[in-house]
Amino acid sequence: MRYYAHPEEGLDLARINAVVEEAFAAFGRDEVEMPPKVYVNLDGGDFRTMPAYIPSLGLAGVKIVNVHPDNPACGLPSVMALLVLLAPATGMPYAVMNATMLTDLRTGASGAVAARHLCRRQDDLEVGLVGAGRQAEAQLEATAAWLGIGRIRVWSRSEASAEAFVRRCDRFDIETATLERVVDCDLLVTTTPSRTPLVSNDWIRDGTHINAIGADAPGKQELDPAILVRARVFVDDPRQAVHSGEINVPIAAGQYRAEQLAGTLGEVVLGKKGRQSDAEITVFDSTGLAIQDLAIARVALEGPDRGIELPFP
Amino acid sequence: MRYYAHPEEGLDLARINAVVEEAFAAFGRDEVEMPPKVYVNLDGGDFRTMPAYIPSLGLAGVKIVNVHPDNPACGLPSVMALLVLLAPATGMPYAVMNATMLTDLRTGASGAVAARHLCRRQDDLEVGLVGAGRQAEAQLEATAAWLGIGRIRVWSRSEASAEAFVRRCDRFDIETATLERVVDCDLLVTTTPSRTPLVSNDWIRDGTHINAIGADAPGKQELDPAILVRARVFVDDPRQAVHSGEINVPIAAGQYRAEQLAGTLGEVVLGKKGRQSDAEITVFDSTGLAIQDLAIARVALEGPDRGIELPFP
Repeated sequence: MRYYAHPEEGLDLARINAVVEEAFAAFGRDEVEMPPKVYVNLDGGDFRTMPAYIPSLGLAGVKIVNVHPDNPACGLPSVMALLVLLAPATGMPYAVMNATMLTDLRTGASGAVAARHLCRRQDDLEVGLVGAGRQAEAQLEATAAWLGIGRIRVWSRSEASAEAFVRRCDRFDIETATLERVVDCDLLVTTTPSRTPLVSNDWIRDGTHINAIGADAPGKQELDPAILVRARVFVDDPRQAVHSGEINVPIAAGQYRAEQLAGTLGEVVLGKKGRQSDAEITVFDSTGLAIQDLAIARVALEGPDRGIELPFP
Repeated sequence: MRYYAHPEEGLDLARINAVVEEAFAAFGRDEVEMPPKVYVNLDGGDFRTMPAYIPSLGLAGVKIVNVHPDNPACGLPSVMALLVLLAPATGMPYAVMNATMLTDLRTGASGAVAARHLCRRQDDLEVGLVGAGRQAEAQLEATAAWLGIGRIRVWSRSEASAEAFVRRCDRFDIETATLERVVDCDLLVTTTPSRTPLVSNDWIRDGTHINAIGADAPGKQELDPAILVRARVFVDDPRQAVHSGEINVPIAAGQYRAEQLAGTLGEVVLGKKGRQSDAEITVFDSTGLAIQDLAIARVALEGPDRGIELPFP
């Protein structure tokens, strides 16, 4: 068994996108074992356990990930993760990975997969970013590895964060803007921990694709529910999305029904479902799947971090 | 974060029993967070993910454990486990343990806790062992750390295994015997992977306490269902037991109803439930709880294995 402290270093983002896309395809073919993630509440947050098996990739394992919003005050990330890989034939654990940064990257990759299949064009995309944290950056970098990015506008509740984001990403054509101006784009990416809608339906132009990434627990939402009703909405996993995705609050409030969902990203990747006209709005509601973690772990095993040997069993 | 390769070495069994008993008490007071374990099927077996949080002990974490019956043919244990502990206040993983042997020990401890509270006497116990593997030994050793053990009889489907067990445990007054003779005792401990009942109701004398340990997945059973109907049956967790404990097959076959259960071991430890007469049969149906793993991990952290430092986050 080996421990990988920095498995995210030196990985190729396009390769991650491709393997994550393959995992979604396996899910779309109903060829993965993946129970919904399990939540355990702690004092200042919670942790989630995410087991899965992808036979076609020979990958089995579990991610353990916490969410503690107050951690930055004591110098720790809010979200930290550990991933354990098991050999499917024997059940033996053979890799333990620090998956904190991998989690950012694999979520970014799912956005890139959705954008490739659901944006109405693949080049000179006008991008709007609502939220300017680590995940906004991961989404932008992963998408840029596959699609042509044009003008980017970014908004954050904290203006300083938005400005820092612009400086960090200055290899792009990027600027801060008002929320309303940011939302008017081809590809809108929302990555905030909001519990009230930030993005108004009136601001969204026809043809926009939205990657709704922030809502990943009950009570979280970023979009005006009217957007969901107007749009064709795809989810990663309906079982998780109704409970903790962007649609969870509107469903609980009777503003949206699970039956209105257009399908899963897996079905989109397989070409079974997708955008039907240039004018329609599409939404990808991401909650994060264990198969994404397995997929990126496979890429990490090929990467420069060779790990530390640990005695087992 | 530290990795513990041999956390089971040098631990005091009575101390393990005490902390496992404390965990059951917390469960009995409804003071733990513990979703039922989640199963993922693999090619030659499965793996289970077991998260939990015990606020009163300050312990949170996840055990990952596989069951691959054919592993011994390739020189690996059928069951291997890894345990991850998280700091409740921050969610940060601080310990990863090889929990293969800890799993044996903590299951043994739950048997000892049940025997202390449910056997009609605490000294010179006549013990019957059905099954002669690692778990039979763990049950015997844990129980001997708390109760006075008299004559032991052991039976295994393989006579050679039973004889090897007698040699391993020759510090006790122990012998092999026929199944019928083994079953006639004060404390019966069943630890086989059987899928058909081995122990006939007619063989069980009044007043026996049975630790039914072997059945831990759908389809497994060791006891004649008539024993369950005749006995006062306690489980570790009703949600797991109906699905994968000794009662799972009789419930599926309509021979037993979950409503007939007498209570949980947690309630027994708290004195809310228990044996009501010297004559009645009592059964503890063990499926294995994540809180037992957290409890033994706490004892292991106090043990001689100081672990290997790993960089995280």
